[in-house]
Amino acid sequence: MLGLMQNQPLLISSLIDFAERHHGDVEIVSRRVEGDIHRYSWRQVAERSRQVANALDGMNLLFSDRVATLAWNGYRHLEIYFGVSGSGRVLHTINPRLHPEQIAWIANHAEDQVLCFDMTFLPLVQAIHARCPGIRRYVALCDADKLPADSGVPNLVSYEAWIAPQSTEYQWPSFDENSASSMCYTSGTTGNPRAALYSHRSTILHAYAAALPDVMCLSARDSVLPVVPMFHVNAWGIPYSAALTGAKLVLPGPALDGKSVYELLEAEKVNYAAGVPTVWQMLLGHMKPNKLRFSTLKRTVIGGSACPPAMIDAFREEYGVEVLHAWGMTEMSPLGTLCTLKNKHLSLPADEQMKIRLKQGRAIFGVDMKTVGGDGKELPWDGKTPGDLYVKGPWVVREYFKDEGGDPLVPDEHGVGWFPTGDVATIDADGYMQITDRSKDVIKSGGEWISTIDIENIAVAHPAVAMAACIGMKHPKWDERPIVAVVKKPGAQLTKEELLKFYEGKIAKWQIPDDVVFVESIPLGATGKMLKTRLREMLKDYHLPTAS
Amino acid sequence: MLGLMQNQPLLISSLIDFAERHHGDVEIVSRRVEGDIHRYSWRQVAERSRQVANALDGMNLLFSDRVATLAWNGYRHLEIYFGVSGSGRVLHTINPRLHPEQIAWIANHAEDQVLCFDMTFLPLVQAIHARCPGIRRYVALCDADKLPADSGVPNLVSYEAWIAPQSTEYQWPSFDENSASSMCYTSGTTGNPRAALYSHRSTILHAYAAALPDVMCLSARDSVLPVVPMFHVNAWGIPYSAALTGAKLVLPGPALDGKSVYELLEAEKVNYAAGVPTVWQMLLGHMKPNKLRFSTLKRTVIGGSACPPAMIDAFREEYGVEVLHAWGMTEMSPLGTLCTLKNKHLSLPADEQMKIRLKQGRAIFGVDMKTVGGDGKELPWDGKTPGDLYVKGPWVVREYFKDEGGDPLVPDEHGVGWFPTGDVATIDADGYMQITDRSKDVIKSGGEWISTIDIENIAVAHPAVAMAACIGMKHPKWDERPIVAVVKKPGAQLTKEELLKFYEGKIAKWQIPDDVVFVESIPLGATGKMLKTRLREMLKDYHLPTAS
Repeated sequence: MLGLMQNQPLLISSLIDFAERHHGDVEIVSRRVEGDIHRYSWRQVAERSRQVANALDGMNLLFSDRVATLAWNGYRHLEIYFGVSGSGRVLHTINPRLHPEQIAWIANHAEDQVLCFDMTFLPLVQAIHARCPGIRRYVALCDADKLPADSGVPNLVSYEAWIAPQSTEYQWPSFDENSASSMCYTSGTTGNPRAALYSHRSTILHAYAAALPDVMCLSARDSVLPVVPMFHVNAWGIPYSAALTGAKLVLPGPALDGKSVYELLEAEKVNYAAGVPTVWQMLLGHMKPNKLRFSTLKRTVIGGSACPPAMIDAFREEYGVEVLHAWGMTEMSPLGTLCTLKNKHLSLPADEQMKIRLKQGRAIFGVDMKTVGGDGKELPWDGKTPGDLYVKGPWVVREYFKDEGGDPLVPDEHGVGWFPTGDVATIDADGYMQITDRSKDVIKSGGEWISTIDIENIAVAHPAVAMAACIGMKHPKWDERPIVAVVKKPGAQLTKEELLKFYEGKIAKWQIPDDVVFVESIPLGATGKMLKTRLREMLKDYHLPTAS
Repeated sequence: MLGLMQNQPLLISSLIDFAERHHGDVEIVSRRVEGDIHRYSWRQVAERSRQVANALDGMNLLFSDRVATLAWNGYRHLEIYFGVSGSGRVLHTINPRLHPEQIAWIANHAEDQVLCFDMTFLPLVQAIHARCPGIRRYVALCDADKLPADSGVPNLVSYEAWIAPQSTEYQWPSFDENSASSMCYTSGTTGNPRAALYSHRSTILHAYAAALPDVMCLSARDSVLPVVPMFHVNAWGIPYSAALTGAKLVLPGPALDGKSVYELLEAEKVNYAAGVPTVWQMLLGHMKPNKLRFSTLKRTVIGGSACPPAMIDAFREEYGVEVLHAWGMTEMSPLGTLCTLKNKHLSLPADEQMKIRLKQGRAIFGVDMKTVGGDGKELPWDGKTPGDLYVKGPWVVREYFKDEGGDPLVPDEHGVGWFPTGDVATIDADGYMQITDRSKDVIKSGGEWISTIDIENIAVAHPAVAMAACIGMKHPKWDERPIVAVVKKPGAQLTKEELLKFYEGKIAKWQIPDDVVFVESIPLGATGKMLKTRLREMLKDYHLPTAS
């Protein structure tokens, strides 16, 4: 039928064009690796991202060639985001918390041609460059005079020397919106790391969705601090959504301790921040003894892992900050659900509202979700039947980079493919999803499933507990029984019996762990999640107390 | 490159699926043509829209066949929105304020096969059906027992009898997101009416953008009343954005008088409403003498034509309601700009903020805009140089239905096509656009452009003036000079000299109109805009006072 709408592809370059044209003077503030504060605006992000594009053109990088980063949240990283993807190359953000051998493996698998890194990570680059022959150019994110003379890293240039000769003029190319824009490897639990490969289309759709009032609620009146790293699923898409809305960005660099984050929140009048629970724990840990208050912070989105109820309470009641649970995955760009209340919830008493806030939230339009049982059939949305959580949507992976691991999707009765998240969850009648476990962590006791997350949340609510991890142990009668490994707070006293007593009345009797094991520390992965596989190894000689 | 995101088309059916699944119990409240209130939920909208789809399948309507409506904002119209587009047909919303011969022409041009109409419009249908042989089925939006026995309309069925036998089960088809979903004719100033043909893709992208915090700011906590008609550019996309966010919809039917709208706003706890200035004028006209207040209304978006400053003041200062200017066009789905403040404006004094609020606003991400001079070159964003306003974006027309009027786009130096809006505007350094005129209305006096909108705004700010229209008259020395046609308020006294004196100090001396002509009324078009062409005809024997 003749006569339709303009065929304009959804491209990341249009985000930075828009931010420059409509919000050119809005500030981007960064704490640099050196510790000082850098301050400029979207106009300069745009100009310098075009210099990056020209530098890549000068290297004769082809369309879809990969450019990697090992970098904190900072303005140069932001310029690379737009310069690389905007010019048609693929931005590969590497998690610097991985082991050097994993990083080398990933860089080779991605066929990275350029690696841009913060000086913090020079030792890492020194450790891997010999194993990464494909990397043609190393770019240190610093001024020319900060570059060490004898680093041993070949083809090394400072970022400023690299882009200085380049023009700030660049005509962003137009191409198919389904072209790859960026990639992120997931650690995975078995086999090699796999990469989710995002497209320009998925990134723009996600950026619209992430800015919605019921998601991050971003506007040109916001000052936004992403504590979540730009090397971790594109900082939940905040750099893109900030450009889309003209928000001010405050980038904390490597200083994620409570004092540094607090000072930045206050100095830059931040009203919205996003990150994982551990960083907020450090922030509250700094504020409480120093009797500090927030002047401008109003909302925070917490994801990565569930936020302990006590922390939500502290933010809301002591500091007047709204805490919103988010849930997502690397394979989902990453946002899947946000836990904002509905109109009908506004008149509920506070404790009823709290029950909702503890869930992972409602699906954002674009993401479809369902839970399925062992037979693959969809389960009811009753808020209590746990099942494997499946998702689909235009910002959910179709398959991993280079088809690693084969086709991950599971078709439904109409032949439509769904991505199995590996999480076990319930969904209630209002569409609020709650993760009860990772599929691999769930404890099956006497035919019933026990949520390790519930058990951990109760433990960390005890004033003497710093950290807790629940795992299942083989049991002759019940198949599996839960035990909880606990790290005590420094100087705190706690006995096994006291903690087990603490569980009483909080969960069903049969769900209470059979034992408490006190440990020095619980192993954490590169994204701060507890590594239960390693905890299991640590406890391989452990035996359950006499079966009850 | 192997490994990318899921290829899921953006389809309108996914909006109603989402609203049913995630916000199934959220209310849709409608004032019916009969005057009573109808109340149900998104779940029932979804079920009944599937019945509509089955009814259309039963008629053997093909993909892209057109289904027309002549209907107010109401729940059955909403079901038709989703049932028609979701099943792959094209929804053609006809403006019932057009003349019957225009409606017949449009229905034939669109090749409408079904016409659904509110009983209000039975006389209209009776007047046109003989001229519309292509319409196979007339559906009266009423219960079976309300259908008149002797209407004379052929193939007439009541909506309820039409869908009652249909199943509420329906598998929405999946297809190319660039398929047509709905269409809307624009009156145009010359030639035949032309239709903008929206696609599923453009509608979904527009729905995301319209819900953003800096646009309509819609969430699952909102109760939304679109006063803007569903026959006028899909009620600015509100039905779609409400489904996307799970907002409550309050549909006012034909009762747009101040009392009816006020009662609905209060009874349904509406916090957000959108419409053209004339309806708000009626609302304030009802509230003021009756000393009424808003209990829940917080925000209103006003578009269609510029809102008189006095009305913005009244809403803000007397009633605490934020008034946001919007600008758009039928050819733009319709939203182009919204006038929300930026962070840096929040600390400005109220009168400085007001200067910004009077503008049409900033571009929404997705829409690019520019002003060009007579030579086609882009003009500076200085807030004072007026030029022809051009736009582009994925929800802007590429061409009209059936290629009417040929290629409307004007290529830039890169060959990218821009749509000329027909408006004359300025854009300031912060990207705020202000319409100064319609291209065809602008007055060129002595080489300078005079804004008819400025002249009209000043006139209506005079307490004795109800309505004012400024047009240019040929002048031997200055090419054109402005005069203003004025409708006095009932019983008000005003002389030409008094009004001309009122202009002094408000605009430059040379911009003050040469004359005031008092008229009984000013002709209005089908969307409530002043028809200056007809005003010119009315004044064809008028001559300017002796040239100054």
